[in-house]
Amino acid sequence: MFDPRPVGYVIGLLVAVLGATMLLPMVVDMAAGNPNWRAFLESAIITGLTGGLVALACANGVGDRLTLQQTFLLTSGVWLVLPVFGALPFVLGVPDARPVDAFFEAMSGLTTTGSTVFSGLDTMPRGTLLWRSMLQWFGGIGIIVVAMAFLPELRVGGMQIFRSEAFETSGKVLPRAAQIASQIWWIYVALTIACGFAYGATGMDPFDALNHALTTMSTGGFSTRDASFGAFQGAAEYVAAVFMVLASLPFVRYVQFVAGEPRPLWRDSQIRTFLVLVVGLVLLMSAYRVLGNGDALAPAFREGVFNVTSIITGTGYSSTDYQLWGSFPMILFFFVGLVGGCSASTTCSIKVFRYQILFSAIRVRIKAIHAPHGLFQPRFEGQPVDDDVLSSVMSFFVFFVVTLGLTAVLLSATGLDATTSLSGAATALANIGPGLGEHIGPAGNFAGLNAPAKWILSVAMLIGRLELLVVFAILTTQFWRA
Amino acid sequence: MFDPRPVGYVIGLLVAVLGATMLLPMVVDMAAGNPNWRAFLESAIITGLTGGLVALACANGVGDRLTLQQTFLLTSGVWLVLPVFGALPFVLGVPDARPVDAFFEAMSGLTTTGSTVFSGLDTMPRGTLLWRSMLQWFGGIGIIVVAMAFLPELRVGGMQIFRSEAFETSGKVLPRAAQIASQIWWIYVALTIACGFAYGATGMDPFDALNHALTTMSTGGFSTRDASFGAFQGAAEYVAAVFMVLASLPFVRYVQFVAGEPRPLWRDSQIRTFLVLVVGLVLLMSAYRVLGNGDALAPAFREGVFNVTSIITGTGYSSTDYQLWGSFPMILFFFVGLVGGCSASTTCSIKVFRYQILFSAIRVRIKAIHAPHGLFQPRFEGQPVDDDVLSSVMSFFVFFVVTLGLTAVLLSATGLDATTSLSGAATALANIGPGLGEHIGPAGNFAGLNAPAKWILSVAMLIGRLELLVVFAILTTQFWRA
Repeated sequence: MFDPRPVGYVIGLLVAVLGATMLLPMVVDMAAGNPNWRAFLESAIITGLTGGLVALACANGVGDRLTLQQTFLLTSGVWLVLPVFGALPFVLGVPDARPVDAFFEAMSGLTTTGSTVFSGLDTMPRGTLLWRSMLQWFGGIGIIVVAMAFLPELRVGGMQIFRSEAFETSGKVLPRAAQIASQIWWIYVALTIACGFAYGATGMDPFDALNHALTTMSTGGFSTRDASFGAFQGAAEYVAAVFMVLASLPFVRYVQFVAGEPRPLWRDSQIRTFLVLVVGLVLLMSAYRVLGNGDALAPAFREGVFNVTSIITGTGYSSTDYQLWGSFPMILFFFVGLVGGCSASTTCSIKVFRYQILFSAIRVRIKAIHAPHGLFQPRFEGQPVDDDVLSSVMSFFVFFVVTLGLTAVLLSATGLDATTSLSGAATALANIGPGLGEHIGPAGNFAGLNAPAKWILSVAMLIGRLELLVVFAILTTQFWRA
Repeated sequence: MFDPRPVGYVIGLLVAVLGATMLLPMVVDMAAGNPNWRAFLESAIITGLTGGLVALACANGVGDRLTLQQTFLLTSGVWLVLPVFGALPFVLGVPDARPVDAFFEAMSGLTTTGSTVFSGLDTMPRGTLLWRSMLQWFGGIGIIVVAMAFLPELRVGGMQIFRSEAFETSGKVLPRAAQIASQIWWIYVALTIACGFAYGATGMDPFDALNHALTTMSTGGFSTRDASFGAFQGAAEYVAAVFMVLASLPFVRYVQFVAGEPRPLWRDSQIRTFLVLVVGLVLLMSAYRVLGNGDALAPAFREGVFNVTSIITGTGYSSTDYQLWGSFPMILFFFVGLVGGCSASTTCSIKVFRYQILFSAIRVRIKAIHAPHGLFQPRFEGQPVDDDVLSSVMSFFVFFVVTLGLTAVLLSATGLDATTSLSGAATALANIGPGLGEHIGPAGNFAGLNAPAKWILSVAMLIGRLELLVVFAILTTQFWRA
C-alpha cells in the first residue's frame, strides 16, 4: 500500500516555510508604503496555514526511510506544489496577474529558468521584485539538494555516479537531504552575500545588488529591470560572470574545500572541461565579433564574457540583444544552452558530465570498431562507468532531444512561429530563460504568448528541472503497482 | 602494412562502370540534337579510363577477404570518389556549373539527398536531367548494399543487429556484397519499372515518368521540374507516396518475399511501426489543415499524404510550399525528417529501428528505476538487444545530434541565417532535400548559398549517408595504426 503521508509531511513543511518567507517582501513593501504588502500577508496566511495543516495531518506517518515511490512523488511534488503557492502573491498583488501568468512566473522562478511574463519591472513594487528573486534563490538551493540527495537514489539521468560522493548516509534519503542541506546552506549564503557586495562595489544600489545576487547564485536570471543587465553594463557584467560560473560548479567540491580538502576542487575533470569550454566560447565569440563584424575589442570581449556565461550556465540574463550580432551567435547560443554547467550545481540542461560520459562512450565505440574483440569501457574521472550509469545518461540524452521535439511541435500547434516554438522548447526544458526571435529573444518577453503555450512551457520547465525521468517515471502505470 | 589495392580495385571498377553509364544520357542528348552530348562523351572517356586504369593497377592485390581498414576505406571512398566523377558532366556541360555546384549536385544525387543548386530544370538538356536521376538511382541501390553487406561487418550504428539476416556469407564482405547486390538488383529494377508505368498511367510523359521513377525508388527527390511535384498534382502524388513507402522498407524482406517467404514481411515490427507513423502523421496533418486552417478536405488529405511521405522517407519532393500551412507543419516536418524509414532501405536519417531500440531502452530504464534489483534488457523484434548493439545505436543518436549542432554552427558562421543554418544542417545530414525558410525551403533552391556553405553541406550529406561513424572512425589516428 502506498502511504502518501511522508510525502505530504515534507511538502507541507516546505509550503509552510515558503509562507513564512513571504513576510520578508511584505515588510519591504510596507517600508516603501506600497499597499502591495497586503498581497503578501494574505498569501502568507493561506500558504502557511495550508502547509502547516497538511504537515500536521501527515505527521504521524513519518519515518527515517522513504520508499522509492515516495521519494519520486516527493521530488516532483515539491516542484509542482510550491509554484502554486509561490504564485499567490502575484495573483493577489499589484499588478494582479492572470493565474496562468502567475503560475508561469513562479515555475520559471523555482525552476531557476528566468523566463518572465512580467513587464514594467522598473516600476513594480519592490516586494514583488524581491519575491521573484527569492523564488529563484530557493529553487537554486532546492535543486542542489535534490541533485545530491534524491536523484542518485532514484538512479535518474546517471546521477547515481555521484551516489557515494562525500556523504555516507546512503539509503536514508531524508536524513541525507537534511545533512547535505545544512552543509550546502552556509556556502550558498556566503557566496550570495559575496556576490551582493561585489555588485554593490560596482555601483549597483543595495536593492538591485541583493536581487541580482539572489538570481545570480541560483543561475536564475530574473532581473529588477526590463533591460535586464542592459541597465548595468560594465564592471557588473564581469562580477556576474564570475559568480554565474561559481554557481555552476559542483557544490560538493565547496563542501570539501571548506572542510580543508581543496584537491578535489582543483582536480575535478568536469570543472576543468566546463572552464575550458567557457573560455573557448568567449574567445570564439570575441574573435567572431572583432574579425567578422569589425566591432571594438573591449566591449565585444565584455559582452562575450557576460552573455556566453549567462547562456551556458542557463542563467539567462542578457546585457544586449545578441541576435543583432548575426546568426552565428544565435545558433551557437542555441546549442550552448543545451550544454549547461556541472552536476549538483544550480544549473540545468544536459550538463557537462553527461557529455564527458557520452563522448567517452563514442570513443570506446570507435575503438571497438577497430578492435572487435577488445573490451573497452567508457570512463569518467578516470573510473570505468558501469552499464547502468551509461544507459541512464544515454537515455537521458535521447529523452531530452525527443521531449524537446515534442514540446516544439506542441508549441507550434498553439500557433507560435517556428523560431519561437523551437527555441522556446529548448529554453524551457534547459531552464535557460530567453529564447530566440523577436518575441522571446533576449530583448523580448514571454508575456505575449497564448495561454496554452504558457502552460506547455511551465510543464517543460518542470520536466527539465527534474531531469525528465523523474516526471516520466511517475506517468507510467508500473509506478503505481506494488 | 595497409594494402590499398583491393580498395582501389573496387572503386576503380565502380568508377569505370559509372563512366560507361554516362553513354546513356549522351545518347539521349544526341537524339534530341542537343550539343550537350559532348559533355557526356568527354566525361565518359575521362571517367572510364581513370577507373579502368586504377582497377588494372590494383588488380593483382585482390582476394576474397578485406581487412577492417580496407572495408572502412572502401565504404567511404566510394561515396567520396564517385561524386567527383559524377560531377564531370555538369562541369563540362550546359549549363556549365562551377565545380562547387557540380560537386554539390553530384553528392546530393549519389547520397539520395535531393537538394539541388540547379534551376531552370524545365529547359535543361534532357541528358543532364537524366544524369541527375541516374545518380540518385545508383546511390539508392548502393546504399542498400552498403547497409546490408558493409555496415553490419563494421558494427556501425547498430547495423550489426542485422548481421545474420538472410545471408550466410558472413566474413567475406565482397562475395557477400556481390550476392546481395545480385538479389536486390532485380527487385529494385522491377519496382522502378512498376513505378514508371504507374506515373505514366497518371498522364506523366515517358521522360518525366522515367526520371521520377528513378528518383522515387531511391527516395532521392530530384525532379525534372523547378516546381518539383507541383507540376504533377493529383493522382501522381498518390503513386509517388506508395512507391516512396515501398522504397523505405527493408529490401531484405522483398528478397524473402520473392523467395516464397512472405511472413517476415508481414511480421516485421519495424515496417509496422513505420506504417503506423506515416498514417498517423497524415491524419494529424490533414486534421490540422481542415480543422485548424479551414482548408478543404480532399486537397488537404492528398497534399498531406504526399508531403508527409516525402519528408519522412527523406525523398524531399514537394508539391506545394507547406510552410504556408503554418509553423506547425514546419516544426513537425523538421522533426519528422529526423525519423526516416527502415533499415537497409534507400532512406537515410536516424531510422525507425533505432528509435524502437532507444525507446525500448528507455522503458527498461524506467522499469529499472522502479525495481533496482531486477534485470531487464531492451528488445527488438522480440529478441534481447545486446549491449554492443545498444551502445552503437545510442552513440549513433548522440553523434547525430552533436554533428547536427556543429554543422549548423559552421553554416551560420558562413553567414547563413539561423533558420537556413539549422534546417540546412538537418536536411543534409538526414539526406532529405529541402530545408526550411525562404532560401532552402520547399519552394527554394540551394543555388543562392555561398560556396563554403555548399562544401559544408556536401560533407554533411556524405557523413549522414555513411551513418556517421564510418567517416569519423577513419579520422581517428587509431584507425591508421597496425
